[in-house]
Amino acid sequence: MTQAIQQQTIALVGQIFDQQMPFHQFLGLRVKRYDLSGVEVELAMKPELVGNFHHNILHGGVTATILDVVGGLTAFAGLVSSRDNWQAEQLEQRLKALSTIDLRVDYLRPGKGVCFTGTGEVIRSGNRISVCKMELHNEKNHQIALGTATYVVG
Amino acid sequence: MTQAIQQQTIALVGQIFDQQMPFHQFLGLRVKRYDLSGVEVELAMKPELVGNFHHNILHGGVTATILDVVGGLTAFAGLVSSRDNWQAEQLEQRLKALSTIDLRVDYLRPGKGVCFTGTGEVIRSGNRISVCKMELHNEKNHQIALGTATYVVG
Amino acid sequence: MTQAIQQQTIALVGQIFDQQMPFHQFLGLRVKRYDLSGVEVELAMKPELVGNFHHNILHGGVTATILDVVGGLTAFAGLVSSRDNWQAEQLEQRLKALSTIDLRVDYLRPGKGVCFTGTGEVIRSGNRISVCKMELHNEKNHQIALGTATYVVG
Amino acid sequence: MTQAIQQQTIALVGQIFDQQMPFHQFLGLRVKRYDLSGVEVELAMKPELVGNFHHNILHGGVTATILDVVGGLTAFAGLVSSRDNWQAEQLEQRLKALSTIDLRVDYLRPGKGVCFTGTGEVIRSGNRISVCKMELHNEKNHQIALGTATYVVG
Repeated sequence: MTQAIQQQTIALVGQIFDQQMPFHQFLGLRVKRYDLSGVEVELAMKPELVGNFHHNILHGGVTATILDVVGGLTAFAGLVSSRDNWQAEQLEQRLKALSTIDLRVDYLRPGKGVCFTGTGEVIRSGNRISVCKMELHNEKNHQIALGTATYVVG
Repeated sequence: MTQAIQQQTIALVGQIFDQQMPFHQFLGLRVKRYDLSGVEVELAMKPELVGNFHHNILHGGVTATILDVVGGLTAFAGLVSSRDNWQAEQLEQRLKALSTIDLRVDYLRPGKGVCFTGTGEVIRSGNRISVCKMELHNEKNHQIALGTATYVVG
Repeated sequence: MTQAIQQQTIALVGQIFDQQMPFHQFLGLRVKRYDLSGVEVELAMKPELVGNFHHNILHGGVTATILDVVGGLTAFAGLVSSRDNWQAEQLEQRLKALSTIDLRVDYLRPGKGVCFTGTGEVIRSGNRISVCKMELHNEKNHQIALGTATYVVG
Repeated sequence: MTQAIQQQTIALVGQIFDQQMPFHQFLGLRVKRYDLSGVEVELAMKPELVGNFHHNILHGGVTATILDVVGGLTAFAGLVSSRDNWQAEQLEQRLKALSTIDLRVDYLRPGKGVCFTGTGEVIRSGNRISVCKMELHNEKNHQIALGTATYVVG
């Protein structure tokens, strides 16, 4: 029953991030997978996302955006899975409070590729604060960037 | 004469960042001022840049993008002004090498506003590496975010 | 009356950080000033604090330590001054909860000098989370490092 | 022959960091293992390293110190292993230039334990700049902290 609440919430949040966040739509960012165990966010390269037109690589701001979205979803999934007696209204409140406090991006390789995938992991979980580690890879599985971010989750 | 090279280069780079970077065009990001003493990057709010549609605030990824652009321009201006005997080709090489190593964003207030302005300052300058501090304010001069970033400048 | 509680708490915490924290004693770190408006932490150079013996400069870990201490005291002072109806027990609880979530240090110049002073500023304040910016200067007022850190304050 | 230069240099640097850095001696920090494939830095708890005397945990500044030392050694090993035609004098020059540009520490768990071990990994390598990821664990293999840092290596 409560497990149902957890899963329904995650499914709903995945849908919102995939289809109702204006900036995600604008970029073409998609939530490919989102469940209690993790998230996969995908972005197909397109000309508008290029920073340096000489090198045809992803703008660093897009990299930061994907990592921030991945981190937020990861932090929220961690919070949802931390208790099995959530009520739907509580999780709704938590989602409204979800926000990034700080984000570090390490740019490891130029953002070359046709499709980029972001994944994440909770490295410190708490009732109010969550810290996540995120990675961005291209379709050849080359790591483009590492992210580390702290989120308010309640 | 060489001062002319410095100023021409900065003017040209400002123009490129203002008019020829695809992702900057896509967002509507403008370089309002760029000279040897600093930079001012501006972005007008528009519906596509919203992250959280409930609160109508700027997506954190857009904040990170502006800060990264401001930092890159700030680092480059610092490099250009560090010597007065540059040749145009040298600066062209340096511009090609310009890239972000790491970026930290501290989100200080929700990104509410109709127009956002990013400014920056070099805090460590070198021939290869530059560290900058950046700020993002809205039109009411409320600070939205602080950035700290390390750039390769050669 | 409550203002008295604020000031007594700050005075007591300053004393604890100055005289009862084992690692502070070990380093010789002193809290020179601590009140609701800010903090000044001082450390005199001594041979044991040297990292690179060729250059006789402060170890980067000592720099990080001073910045972290300054940030914690700054965050706590910000919390205390955010309300004027604290009870002493509440502030005691808050002090016990005080901890660093993340810290970024930018090393701006080699740590040369005979006396180092750390100062700080709250840049995001909240009831649970506080973000601070810290600086370390030597006795010639050259800035050695910049710190940015996020603290749990409750 | 050059492989011999690589290994001798690493052995020498490990010895210097283990026995000749004043602040390392002061803390009791030991380089347990250092070769081209990685590093292991160890620190035994002692009363002087305690931050919060209520909880008897490692001061956050000590955590930052270990991570910074680990990162520097990791970055240097990465540089040494990046080429097999180094001359001893070149590596000596590189070692002198080795310095931290920026360091982020994420404090994941309170620093409880009797012995702490730091390990690291190069995540971006270059001829001038290296970015490393570091971890600190206690003797129960609980991760205390994550570090991310950028180093000048030449």
